Amino acid sequence: MELDIVSANEAFYAAFRGEDLEAMDRLWAQRAPVACVHPGWPALIGRDQVMASWRAILSSGAPAIRCGAARVLMLGDVASVLCEEQVGSDRVVATNVFVREDGRWVMVHHHGSQLVARSVPTPDDSDDDEDLSGDDDEPDVGPN
Amino acid sequence: MELDIVSANEAFYAAFRGEDLEAMDRLWAQRAPVACVHPGWPALIGRDQVMASWRAILSSGAPAIRCGAARVLMLGDVASVLCEEQVGSDRVVATNVFVREDGRWVMVHHHGSQLVARSVPTPDDSDDDEDLSGDDDEPDVGPN
Repeated sequence: MELDIVSANEAFYAAFRGEDLEAMDRLWAQRAPVACVHPGWPALIGRDQVMASWRAILSSGAPAIRCGAARVLMLGDVASVLCEEQVGSDRVVATNVFVREDGRWVMVHHHGSQLVARSVPTPDDSDDDEDLSGDDDEPDVGPN
Repeated sequence: MELDIVSANEAFYAAFRGEDLEAMDRLWAQRAPVACVHPGWPALIGRDQVMASWRAILSSGAPAIRCGAARVLMLGDVASVLCEEQVGSDRVVATNVFVREDGRWVMVHHHGSQLVARSVPTPDDSDDDEDLSGDDDEPDVGPN
């Protein structure tokens, strides 16, 4: 099953790279509620808003985009995929959520955010009270 | 049910505002897989990484944070909440995902991204081929 989800995730990036609006439309859910947050954008909710955004993005020339480091987290019948995108010279962290409709995994949610942090906590830091920037001032990135 | 989910979402922001690590720990799932993407950060996966990040953030002084415009999307037994956070002078768009464990809604996923876009497509734009920036150059925000 996880392979099917990874394939659905890859199909999303193939449609993006290929500027293939028809494929992009097919891979978003028809009945489940959908939402999309492009990096820096407000939330787009509902199929009309989401597909309007893809129509605008794909018609203006999609950038070279690659996806790596995909990890699938199963939440019952819902699959959440976290992955990193290389978009031109930018790195973007993405949450992509899929559900099953008519026997296939379809996208219901995409949220991308540009990666700017330089350091992250690890489980080894869990006893530390230090902030995340490595100095005593503000963290590199404002929390949440 | 939707009220319970909105309450769970508000409890997350109350724990954040109150720098209450114990409450923050309680409201994240114990058994379901969890993940968190703070704005600009890479994905943190698993309870150890996620709670280490909250320990670091809450111990370094949480900013004034308010949440508004929460909208709940039901995906079967999974609830996705989209909302906007005011974090100091920044606006952040958040995806918060909840599942039920032991009869209560608990958080499994948080993804925040700073809001920087100035214009978004609407369904009324759906027949346009223009990009989203209102001019003929690059969009304000790179698509992902």
